[in-house]
Amino acid sequence: MVEEKFVVTPWEVRGAVDYDRLIRDFGTQPISGPLAKKLEEILGDAAYLVRRRVFFSHRDLDLVLDDYSKGRGLFLYTGRGPSGPMHIGHIISFYFTKWLQDKFHTTVYIQITDDEKFLEEKRNLSYEDTQRWAVDNILEIAAVGFEPDRTFILQDTEFIGNAYPMVLKIARRVNYSLAKSVFGFTGETNIGFTFYPSYQILPSLLEKRRCLIPSAIDQDPYWRIQRDIAESMGYYKAAAVHSKFLPPLTGMQDKMSSSKPETAIYLSDDDKTVRNKVYRYAFSGGQATKEEHRKKGGDPDVDVPFQWLYMFFEPNDKRIEQIRAEYKSGRMLTGDLKDILIEKVTTFLSQHRQRREKARDLVHLYKKDGTLAREMWKRDFAKS
Amino acid sequence: MVEEKFVVTPWEVRGAVDYDRLIRDFGTQPISGPLAKKLEEILGDAAYLVRRRVFFSHRDLDLVLDDYSKGRGLFLYTGRGPSGPMHIGHIISFYFTKWLQDKFHTTVYIQITDDEKFLEEKRNLSYEDTQRWAVDNILEIAAVGFEPDRTFILQDTEFIGNAYPMVLKIARRVNYSLAKSVFGFTGETNIGFTFYPSYQILPSLLEKRRCLIPSAIDQDPYWRIQRDIAESMGYYKAAAVHSKFLPPLTGMQDKMSSSKPETAIYLSDDDKTVRNKVYRYAFSGGQATKEEHRKKGGDPDVDVPFQWLYMFFEPNDKRIEQIRAEYKSGRMLTGDLKDILIEKVTTFLSQHRQRREKARDLVHLYKKDGTLAREMWKRDFAKS
Repeated sequence: MVEEKFVVTPWEVRGAVDYDRLIRDFGTQPISGPLAKKLEEILGDAAYLVRRRVFFSHRDLDLVLDDYSKGRGLFLYTGRGPSGPMHIGHIISFYFTKWLQDKFHTTVYIQITDDEKFLEEKRNLSYEDTQRWAVDNILEIAAVGFEPDRTFILQDTEFIGNAYPMVLKIARRVNYSLAKSVFGFTGETNIGFTFYPSYQILPSLLEKRRCLIPSAIDQDPYWRIQRDIAESMGYYKAAAVHSKFLPPLTGMQDKMSSSKPETAIYLSDDDKTVRNKVYRYAFSGGQATKEEHRKKGGDPDVDVPFQWLYMFFEPNDKRIEQIRAEYKSGRMLTGDLKDILIEKVTTFLSQHRQRREKARDLVHLYKKDGTLAREMWKRDFAKS
Repeated sequence: MVEEKFVVTPWEVRGAVDYDRLIRDFGTQPISGPLAKKLEEILGDAAYLVRRRVFFSHRDLDLVLDDYSKGRGLFLYTGRGPSGPMHIGHIISFYFTKWLQDKFHTTVYIQITDDEKFLEEKRNLSYEDTQRWAVDNILEIAAVGFEPDRTFILQDTEFIGNAYPMVLKIARRVNYSLAKSVFGFTGETNIGFTFYPSYQILPSLLEKRRCLIPSAIDQDPYWRIQRDIAESMGYYKAAAVHSKFLPPLTGMQDKMSSSKPETAIYLSDDDKTVRNKVYRYAFSGGQATKEEHRKKGGDPDVDVPFQWLYMFFEPNDKRIEQIRAEYKSGRMLTGDLKDILIEKVTTFLSQHRQRREKARDLVHLYKKDGTLAREMWKRDFAKS
């Protein structure tokens, strides 16, 4: 059997990802053994993410949990580049972060990297585009339900007037060669984009406690520079908990892509669109005909509807194993499995949209007026 | 005779500068003929700077004067990196700019590049150092007497919250290779410093008229990038009028240096210090003994006191030619010539210091409350 090739970098995910291989290649640690047990205990009803290895890899999570159990605490940092509408893959990582906030009872910093998305030339977004998407995406994030007094949504272009002194202090410690090696810059890269990593590091240094960054593993290289410089600045190296990618609808390979709408379900997709997309595009592990399927059964490992249920939409372990068994045996047909997913996704989206309407009144708390936000706007970053 | 080697880059001035050679090497134009006449007419009592070729080179000055005579106007832009105390060479260029403001009746933008000075690692300044020097240097500049309602002092770290969208728009148009070739960046250069040129270009795009930048010629390369991108952004290429360097006290070579206090006279030097510095360090074109000097005469071309008088401190043409003749003939001794300079410099400094005390109440007009400053703080740079 020929080993399939796959590529995972911050700019590209191609092929069928071998996650154990990634742990070795990226030099991270698997979440397993006593550490996994400890995290499961803290996560409670969200522990299925650990049991099912959706959270599969980490950096310094052991130190974070130790700080937590000893009362030293931690804080969370995540972000979003507002380059277009958000899909299910995007928002799930915010739900993960919200659950971590609930379980760890801690602060969350959410960076909206509108400057980065403007500077990323291949996207060819106007400044106005990035501002419009920032408003849209922030509302989606607000709908997730973070604690308004312990969450700060930091929109780069709005906050730079405050953050600049500290961004400069970070920038002075990162030379071009290092940034180039981590981010793959070339001579053609513009000088705004090569500067941008300094701002991306800032939120990880907003508290003198350990920062835990939940992210898909492809984002891990971004934090190598942070881990190089944090201690010399009197802060902690950022810790990370890495999740697997929710696979694209179209199959277990690559990543959902905004330029291929059939690979993803958008938060704005209505029920009918969801149904059509799942029926038409969701890659099935079932057999070609009903008869054959009844006889041979389906393959849940390559079946995207099953994987979406397993990774997020069906937290009940008993139920998911029941589905797996039914499908494998051929008793459950592809259509039935797709119907289960459609039901879950449309319910999720409908609830999310309801929360989004209510979230309009929350945005100002996350950005300006909540306890944490007010503290951030008052801080003198020249003294940080 | 062996041609003396000299080097002029934005980072270094070494050797005896051949200004005609610089015009060829930098690809600028000499200020001569009808253009010189036209500039002299406009400058009036400051025309000696043209006649004596202190203003000796330009880019697009012909277009600027044409715009001016046709009523389209122009604006002026200069700046200061607040890395330490200012010396006479620094402040003279601000007096030049003020005269240009008076004669052209126009707006002036003065950028205080405190971020740049923090990012320039070889200076090893703390953030607090740059802020302290910014306050100090801004007061010196305010003492020059710019029109409070037509002058905006833009301190980078204070104004970034407003300017950022436009700085990003500039940054997106400048790739690393270009910036590297102009500024001499290496892999060791930090990613803040490589970003900084985007901010330095901003003031030249603050009006949709031609921007005239008065500067020493070593700063010319900084504007090449501006001239590459300005028109594609809907603005004019920056024009420039280049001045010669006021030579260091110690001789007609190199440039005044903050790390060698004997090469410069600081604005804070008291009369006694000025006298001591001129007597001890000012390079003389006179002969070794009084007798020899009376016989052979002095050489004004290499005599720093004469050059300072010629380039700035003695605007009266008749008087300066008288001094030249007296000195050349040997009738005027080195000590006499130094005394003339000392008298001029101490008077200048005393007047400057008096104006500086009064300027304390003007700083807020230049930075925030004057007509132009208020306009700048109100502007939406996302729409620029």
